[in-house]
Amino acid sequence: MTRKSIRERVLARDAAFIAGQAKKQEAAGATHIDVNAGGDPASEVKDMAWLTEVVAEATGLPLAFDSTNPKAIEKGLSLCNRPGTIINSITGEKERLKSILPLVKKHKTGVVALTMDDGGMPEDLEGRVALTRAIAEAVKAKGVGLDRVYFDHLVRPASTNPGQARHILEAIRITRAEFPEAHIALGLSNVSYGLPNRNNLNRAFLAMLVAAGADGAIIDPCEEGMMNTLLSARAALGLDEFCMEYISAYREGKLGERKDA
Amino acid sequence: MTRKSIRERVLARDAAFIAGQAKKQEAAGATHIDVNAGGDPASEVKDMAWLTEVVAEATGLPLAFDSTNPKAIEKGLSLCNRPGTIINSITGEKERLKSILPLVKKHKTGVVALTMDDGGMPEDLEGRVALTRAIAEAVKAKGVGLDRVYFDHLVRPASTNPGQARHILEAIRITRAEFPEAHIALGLSNVSYGLPNRNNLNRAFLAMLVAAGADGAIIDPCEEGMMNTLLSARAALGLDEFCMEYISAYREGKLGERKDA
Repeated sequence: MTRKSIRERVLARDAAFIAGQAKKQEAAGATHIDVNAGGDPASEVKDMAWLTEVVAEATGLPLAFDSTNPKAIEKGLSLCNRPGTIINSITGEKERLKSILPLVKKHKTGVVALTMDDGGMPEDLEGRVALTRAIAEAVKAKGVGLDRVYFDHLVRPASTNPGQARHILEAIRITRAEFPEAHIALGLSNVSYGLPNRNNLNRAFLAMLVAAGADGAIIDPCEEGMMNTLLSARAALGLDEFCMEYISAYREGKLGERKDA
Repeated sequence: MTRKSIRERVLARDAAFIAGQAKKQEAAGATHIDVNAGGDPASEVKDMAWLTEVVAEATGLPLAFDSTNPKAIEKGLSLCNRPGTIINSITGEKERLKSILPLVKKHKTGVVALTMDDGGMPEDLEGRVALTRAIAEAVKAKGVGLDRVYFDHLVRPASTNPGQARHILEAIRITRAEFPEAHIALGLSNVSYGLPNRNNLNRAFLAMLVAAGADGAIIDPCEEGMMNTLLSARAALGLDEFCMEYISAYREGKLGERKDA
């Protein structure tokens, strides 16, 4: 839950709306609910407490605490730290590693790791891979297992950064090969920024990400066709044993109208 | 044009139907029209002549002559050999290389190369790559440029061959790296054989193929969403300069209902 409209609802304490959004995301197949109370820095800790309680009551899913403020994250964790909980996020930035990694270790959570650092976002494949390795080193040095890290190789818009998608797919393949125990889950919708009917690009790119080795994606599960593409990609790649997830979703009517096999 | 219903229409000499199919495929964005008159071996040469004339009159696109019978192919070529014409297909089978490659050379056509041979279809990545290399050797030895070859790494059903899709993607990456001038275009719909709502898997797999390095695909351009996925994948990967093909298709209403960018 990160969109602007949602922040306004948090500040307005609209519990019914927030709870409804969480339930809708769960029904659509989300594995985590992202909680972000960053509308007003002065009240973020208080807002995060309220948001966490509302979402935790609405769903049984683990939460992803989405903040750069360690106090807000810790407040949220104190109220709800279910198995699978994620902190969103660390980067290669020294200050952020120092403030957030101890929370990951102490509260035994997962953590999203964005491949950027104090120098900003890398422009080439080498920079992306170097940052992945640096973050993996920092995490291991803190005694946190890489199976708790969700690498997010930051996606750039295809309209303005036409070569970046191929860098990202290659960075994913390298990450998967070097750190097989790590998770790879990208916030992918940026790929279509500035283009019409963005959902078309989001779906095509999601299929490519899964083929390259991503085992998750930060998607809006309510966006049309995204769960369909995810299940279809996993089935095509043999990652869905006997295609049972795909077939179950089909039987539940989640893959569009039934047609003959 | 290879489906069973179409073969029956060929045997029945239903020119209006055949011409309509060709026009429909062209309107949907096809680059070639596949002509296959293989319903009855005894009359294939005659049937190919009739089919070629009907399709050539209905469309200005180059044709893909789809047959294992060199006489049928040569009959078709004698009637219509536009720039870009393709012979479908050679394999690594000795007899087929011997009978078909001379036609490719003589008539200056392209040729689809299926990675199978007298031993059948390879079950592993190594077998696929070895066959690709063997076919490339045979083509070069005949004095035909690899820019005229369309490799088709035969796709197996995900439902019964769950590991094969990843082999194919890796085989495509290797082919692209070793033979940059060759085309890679797979008949992909086999991936979804035996599963419901096959279009879902076909679209996800098409996006992966383009990301791996395929520059084409043998698809039914009238199948819902396939051209959309192809254009979206190319735009996401930066293969569509300034996303102009994507944007043009959007403006022409070919990418679904218009939504705000």
